[in-house]
Amino acid sequence: MPDTLLRHPFMSQSALMQCNVSALVEAMLAFELALAEVQEVRGAMPGGTSGAMRRVLEAHAFDHEALAAGVASGGNVAIPFVKQGRAALPDALKRYWHMGATSQDVVDSALMLLLQPRLAALDALLGRCRTAALALMQAHEQTVMVGRTLMQQALPTTFGVKVAHWAIGLEQARRRLAQVELPVQFGGAVGVHSGWDTLGLDFMDAIAQKLGLATPVLPWHTDRLPIHALGTALDAAAGAAEKLALDVALLTQTEVGEVAEPSAPGMGESSSMPHKRNPVRCAMIRGAARQVHGNTTVLLHAVAQPLERGLGEWHAEWSPLIDSALLLEGALEQAAVLLEGLEVHPEAMRRNLAATGGGIMAEPVSRLLAPVLGQDAAKRISAEAAETARHQGIPYAEALEEHAEVRGRIEAEALRQATDPALYLGSSQAQVHRAMAWLGE
Amino acid sequence: MPDTLLRHPFMSQSALMQCNVSALVEAMLAFELALAEVQEVRGAMPGGTSGAMRRVLEAHAFDHEALAAGVASGGNVAIPFVKQGRAALPDALKRYWHMGATSQDVVDSALMLLLQPRLAALDALLGRCRTAALALMQAHEQTVMVGRTLMQQALPTTFGVKVAHWAIGLEQARRRLAQVELPVQFGGAVGVHSGWDTLGLDFMDAIAQKLGLATPVLPWHTDRLPIHALGTALDAAAGAAEKLALDVALLTQTEVGEVAEPSAPGMGESSSMPHKRNPVRCAMIRGAARQVHGNTTVLLHAVAQPLERGLGEWHAEWSPLIDSALLLEGALEQAAVLLEGLEVHPEAMRRNLAATGGGIMAEPVSRLLAPVLGQDAAKRISAEAAETARHQGIPYAEALEEHAEVRGRIEAEALRQATDPALYLGSSQAQVHRAMAWLGE
Amino acid sequence: MPDTLLRHPFMSQSALMQCNVSALVEAMLAFELALAEVQEVRGAMPGGTSGAMRRVLEAHAFDHEALAAGVASGGNVAIPFVKQGRAALPDALKRYWHMGATSQDVVDSALMLLLQPRLAALDALLGRCRTAALALMQAHEQTVMVGRTLMQQALPTTFGVKVAHWAIGLEQARRRLAQVELPVQFGGAVGVHSGWDTLGLDFMDAIAQKLGLATPVLPWHTDRLPIHALGTALDAAAGAAEKLALDVALLTQTEVGEVAEPSAPGMGESSSMPHKRNPVRCAMIRGAARQVHGNTTVLLHAVAQPLERGLGEWHAEWSPLIDSALLLEGALEQAAVLLEGLEVHPEAMRRNLAATGGGIMAEPVSRLLAPVLGQDAAKRISAEAAETARHQGIPYAEALEEHAEVRGRIEAEALRQATDPALYLGSSQAQVHRAMAWLGE
Amino acid sequence: MPDTLLRHPFMSQSALMQCNVSALVEAMLAFELALAEVQEVRGAMPGGTSGAMRRVLEAHAFDHEALAAGVASGGNVAIPFVKQGRAALPDALKRYWHMGATSQDVVDSALMLLLQPRLAALDALLGRCRTAALALMQAHEQTVMVGRTLMQQALPTTFGVKVAHWAIGLEQARRRLAQVELPVQFGGAVGVHSGWDTLGLDFMDAIAQKLGLATPVLPWHTDRLPIHALGTALDAAAGAAEKLALDVALLTQTEVGEVAEPSAPGMGESSSMPHKRNPVRCAMIRGAARQVHGNTTVLLHAVAQPLERGLGEWHAEWSPLIDSALLLEGALEQAAVLLEGLEVHPEAMRRNLAATGGGIMAEPVSRLLAPVLGQDAAKRISAEAAETARHQGIPYAEALEEHAEVRGRIEAEALRQATDPALYLGSSQAQVHRAMAWLGE
Repeated sequence: MPDTLLRHPFMSQSALMQCNVSALVEAMLAFELALAEVQEVRGAMPGGTSGAMRRVLEAHAFDHEALAAGVASGGNVAIPFVKQGRAALPDALKRYWHMGATSQDVVDSALMLLLQPRLAALDALLGRCRTAALALMQAHEQTVMVGRTLMQQALPTTFGVKVAHWAIGLEQARRRLAQVELPVQFGGAVGVHSGWDTLGLDFMDAIAQKLGLATPVLPWHTDRLPIHALGTALDAAAGAAEKLALDVALLTQTEVGEVAEPSAPGMGESSSMPHKRNPVRCAMIRGAARQVHGNTTVLLHAVAQPLERGLGEWHAEWSPLIDSALLLEGALEQAAVLLEGLEVHPEAMRRNLAATGGGIMAEPVSRLLAPVLGQDAAKRISAEAAETARHQGIPYAEALEEHAEVRGRIEAEALRQATDPALYLGSSQAQVHRAMAWLGE
Repeated sequence: MPDTLLRHPFMSQSALMQCNVSALVEAMLAFELALAEVQEVRGAMPGGTSGAMRRVLEAHAFDHEALAAGVASGGNVAIPFVKQGRAALPDALKRYWHMGATSQDVVDSALMLLLQPRLAALDALLGRCRTAALALMQAHEQTVMVGRTLMQQALPTTFGVKVAHWAIGLEQARRRLAQVELPVQFGGAVGVHSGWDTLGLDFMDAIAQKLGLATPVLPWHTDRLPIHALGTALDAAAGAAEKLALDVALLTQTEVGEVAEPSAPGMGESSSMPHKRNPVRCAMIRGAARQVHGNTTVLLHAVAQPLERGLGEWHAEWSPLIDSALLLEGALEQAAVLLEGLEVHPEAMRRNLAATGGGIMAEPVSRLLAPVLGQDAAKRISAEAAETARHQGIPYAEALEEHAEVRGRIEAEALRQATDPALYLGSSQAQVHRAMAWLGE
Repeated sequence: MPDTLLRHPFMSQSALMQCNVSALVEAMLAFELALAEVQEVRGAMPGGTSGAMRRVLEAHAFDHEALAAGVASGGNVAIPFVKQGRAALPDALKRYWHMGATSQDVVDSALMLLLQPRLAALDALLGRCRTAALALMQAHEQTVMVGRTLMQQALPTTFGVKVAHWAIGLEQARRRLAQVELPVQFGGAVGVHSGWDTLGLDFMDAIAQKLGLATPVLPWHTDRLPIHALGTALDAAAGAAEKLALDVALLTQTEVGEVAEPSAPGMGESSSMPHKRNPVRCAMIRGAARQVHGNTTVLLHAVAQPLERGLGEWHAEWSPLIDSALLLEGALEQAAVLLEGLEVHPEAMRRNLAATGGGIMAEPVSRLLAPVLGQDAAKRISAEAAETARHQGIPYAEALEEHAEVRGRIEAEALRQATDPALYLGSSQAQVHRAMAWLGE
Repeated sequence: MPDTLLRHPFMSQSALMQCNVSALVEAMLAFELALAEVQEVRGAMPGGTSGAMRRVLEAHAFDHEALAAGVASGGNVAIPFVKQGRAALPDALKRYWHMGATSQDVVDSALMLLLQPRLAALDALLGRCRTAALALMQAHEQTVMVGRTLMQQALPTTFGVKVAHWAIGLEQARRRLAQVELPVQFGGAVGVHSGWDTLGLDFMDAIAQKLGLATPVLPWHTDRLPIHALGTALDAAAGAAEKLALDVALLTQTEVGEVAEPSAPGMGESSSMPHKRNPVRCAMIRGAARQVHGNTTVLLHAVAQPLERGLGEWHAEWSPLIDSALLLEGALEQAAVLLEGLEVHPEAMRRNLAATGGGIMAEPVSRLLAPVLGQDAAKRISAEAAETARHQGIPYAEALEEHAEVRGRIEAEALRQATDPALYLGSSQAQVHRAMAWLGE
């Protein structure tokens, strides 16, 4: 598959190297060996058995191609893996291999093990984003820019507040991800540790501890709420990164130009237009996030699995889950670089504030006029003058001064002040401080 | 729209009555009046103003049809609502109405207010489910049935364990929903309390307290992580209910018959087949859950909203969010009734355990044979005898006894015991106890 | 439910009035009466029976509240409808009512009947869009504007071409919708016309003809490909409208200002900012389209239905399907108004073409330089000069003239021509003509 | 990535081998060389240039790792590919390389070229399914089985009809896929063939012809209806296969046992339960189909792309589109094998028909009773007797005979006939014949 050219570029390259076929095989092996160890400790096999197994199997080169071929016939990768493992063991050890376990125990636990370092990496990336955002917030807590609603200029805000929103979104996602648990799976054929009686739960708890995974209440072969929690938490972080990318892409538009992606050699160039600097990081983030949403949709529909084992629902989870983690990690790498190196152009922000001739200040103007002219008239007049200013290309203050119903009734200086964006920032600064406090919690 | 016949039947009828057009209007009014009150307390309007507003507007009959007509032109329901409200106020009060607020403040806060009692109702329903499930678990902790993987008979389990899984899923969903916050929205035009400086955040916090909503870090007009958290938590609960419904539907199949939906007059009848008892509650739950997943997909794609206000992304959230809550409430009402009145047929469970002639016991048989015949031969022989038993319709123990490689090498009694499901329940009972403890936490 | 304020505003209001509870009841009745008529013609009931039924039932006021209540217990609206119908008939007619039919025959056929006028309305709206787009294409086939890729200014194009793309998208969707078939449903309890032998297929074909619906190969109770075809065709049209809305919203941005939504009283106003003209139609289209995508997701997951009747999958289709049609009709009404009244500002387009100092012309410049300076140098120099022009705010031609490697080697006039957007429109005009021809096919 | 173990097993292995990184590179090269050839023919480059290019580049080993690295910085694979290609060419040819093309021209066209053999393979597989289904239909046009609605036994049907439904679904999907067009992409930087005037459209048409791709009306960089049509057609086929797999899985349940997956060495075995034969092919089909639906959701949300080039929306399409094709091909390979080798157990079908003591025959019984006892009483009595039969385990005919209101009023023979499934098959046989005719069209 042309994965390496079409899908992997959206992913974290370092993560891709860690999270490969070998890693999956190692994770399956780690599960099986942990199982043997806890069984040995509890007397289910002779002392030294698990160590002997470990020596043989850690030295064994599993045949990845045969594993791949075996998935299709067995229905999951644990089946050929267990076969290869058994075949590699000396006869005396064979019977202690995979004892009491079912394929799903192996695969689910291995997937959780694969995801463990990914969640740590995601947390670190979100931490990097937070640090970078805090620096931007501090630097720009007084940088005035126009706020835009429905993509129309509305009223002034600051760039510090805008960054605060990005940071809050990403930090909410980080905290949600930090609460996600990666439980071990161990239940045997139908989830009740057939043949092991109450030892089964002991095994489960002990394997969890040994592998550093969470302990579930019970085996969760068809209780997929943990997968839903994980998948939707990944999705939330993808959404937070996507919001950042959308804003940066909009603010980077040629006609807006208030920020630019950090430049880097070869980054964002066009194959046909040498002058362009494409917001490629934004495109990559948005491309990744949308693929994450698609994966999440698969997971939403896979929560309800029949009886004691999914019939395709479980199988459908594997790739979307791992993919989402890797896509998100890629997106957050881009997001961190974006935030760390974002070019901010306060002068463009000032230029754009003047674009409507000050018409964005109709609300404060309306407030100024209301006590004198009445609420309804104030709204109407501030709107009429905004239209006049827009059509004639004159400053809003001037259009107001010359409005028939305003002329001589309001001081020119008051009109000028009411139309000055920098005097109309509301709680912007307090918001930045509040956000910084919350981010630092 | 034929909503009342096509969509509403999946919803909670009592919730539908509470969560109607009037309730939305009242919620918007509650927000506006809370805003006025906190502003009055902080001196932003003369004493008595908010009370006067309240008297006028609580007595005012808002024109719902005009509201509906106004949405399409304004883009959201707050715009015509604010207009009607202002028009209804005496001139002296008009200027204090909707002061410092933007449409999204009104709509988002009103939606959170609408959802508040719904979350409480969902919590109560999930509590009802838990109680009913606990009773079933206790009653059936020793009720043997076959576990099925990929819908094939696998090994014995108990009905108590199966109910435990349903209960754990629903309880995980309940705990996740219980952590969801419904934040107030108040930020004004671009989210920075334009014109109110630091008072804006005070207002926001005070309104939240007055309305019993959560206090956000900052206004969250385009930081939609809270909606994502809410929407996906609703989805998780829908998935947990869907799992219950899927299992019940499968166990209710004519050929399985291990459980049946509680019978009720007129429930589950067919328009053409008088003999049938359709698992209608399961169908309604599954129908609802799938619609919830569709709504969730909309919400996943709406997290990234541009700059300071969505341009359709926000608008797309309204119905899916409310709908999901009402659909879920309907599904959980059905789930509660299902669990409270489920007909359980242990004799059918016993009958089905015997369906394969005991062939489901191949694993314990394999364990019995292994020490004598070797691991690989044991697996092969237990499989061969299972095939023989299936084809000849004889008990599995007998097929084993007569297998050429077994004959005379294993005691008949040992074979009979190894093929008795009731002696092979693993940790079933311990699992039920463990789940009960966790559910009671 | 607050549907009338949260969901219906996205829908066509005229469609909502036609497609209501009564219409659904009438459609179910139309199916039942058509069934009776074709059965009468084929001798399955005494002459005059179906006419007698029609007289009674067309005069009968079905109790909509009782229908709604009956859905939840029966599982679909046909069950209480059939009951009410039977109860309303004199005893002698009762046995001829709903003869050989199953609930799903009634509901599916009724939904198809409800959708029939909607598809006609959608076709008409898409025709209106095409007409309006053709006028815009003709008017603007030479209106130069900048093309933007990744939202960055790239190279010149014309507004005529942009409209052509919108028109082609909408027309592709129209042609796809025009091919969609709305088949009658009639198969009886398990889809094989139990009790009617080969007459069953005759009935099916005759009912289809009488109702103006398509004739399926066989009853399609759980063959939902027709629903998939319909739902995805609706989705395609929603996507085409969404593309239009996205472009218009982007071009309407304050800083771009190349087009504006048609103004209308009360349309697009802000509750707090009198100066704003929000692209509300775009927001409504995008809001509708996203809800359609959510509905489509439900339908994708509902194609695979078990055995002879869905167990929730079918139930989950009803609302999403009808909703999508009504949401799309609403979106297309907005789209038609947008295209018919779009304000186009060629002077803003010219202004924006100059925004980069001509830097968008790096490609033609590169072509001009290449023969003299070599391909690689030409690309590099055209990029360097673009950077210079951007940073120094000078015309691109000037930056080129003064570039050390260009100075004196290329004629100033050639540089000026190579940097003139209006001389670099490629196939724009031919594209408009080609599109017009195709649209007129 | 552990793709080879988690995702690829769901895919066609032969397709995976054909559709690899090299194939993508070859497809990009095929596009570029076709472009050069048509340009040469039209005099845009000296005679022999394109041939010289071909000789150099077909012999050139593109560096796949460098390509992969270049995607992330450039934003798509065409950028590093074009660079490598140019670098490999002698200086004299460099300027004729990628002339007038943009990255998206290369990537979109290459993806269409990759998909071309996949659509052919899908058509062939669907043809295989049709052939196999026709044989099953013919063999089983009189094989009686029970029809099940809401997974409850309802009334008799035949296995031939069931297969007919599978076949019709798959054939509808095949016909839909056969209508899908794979258009060439060629528009240059902003889609208007900048610098080539009307020649641009000539080039586009000629490249399409040379590559065997469809000719679009205009370049379709951000008119993604063709991708929507393709993606949803693939999804429809996935849904049709999923329906087959769902039915087979249900009919394969231990307690039902009416069909079984074809057995194959190592296929469907369990790692812990030697006796089991898991419906692995069904699980793989269902797992694949669900992943396809997730991919389709991505495509639905990617139709609306901004202005002249997507900013992530386009990028998000690549993998989901190719993946869906390969997943579907894998699913259809399984479906073909399923249909070709399905084990059908008519005796189990007969056994299951008797499971309710004949109670499934309540409808014909009701018809028999109605003339004598009245419509309402007939319905009631047939239901009461069904309950009696179910509870007492006696044949339905007997329960009827002994019903107080029936005794002596209806002949025993008539009751026996009315309760014989094989006499109540409706249009089953005619349906099979009709379906065969339609499939053979």
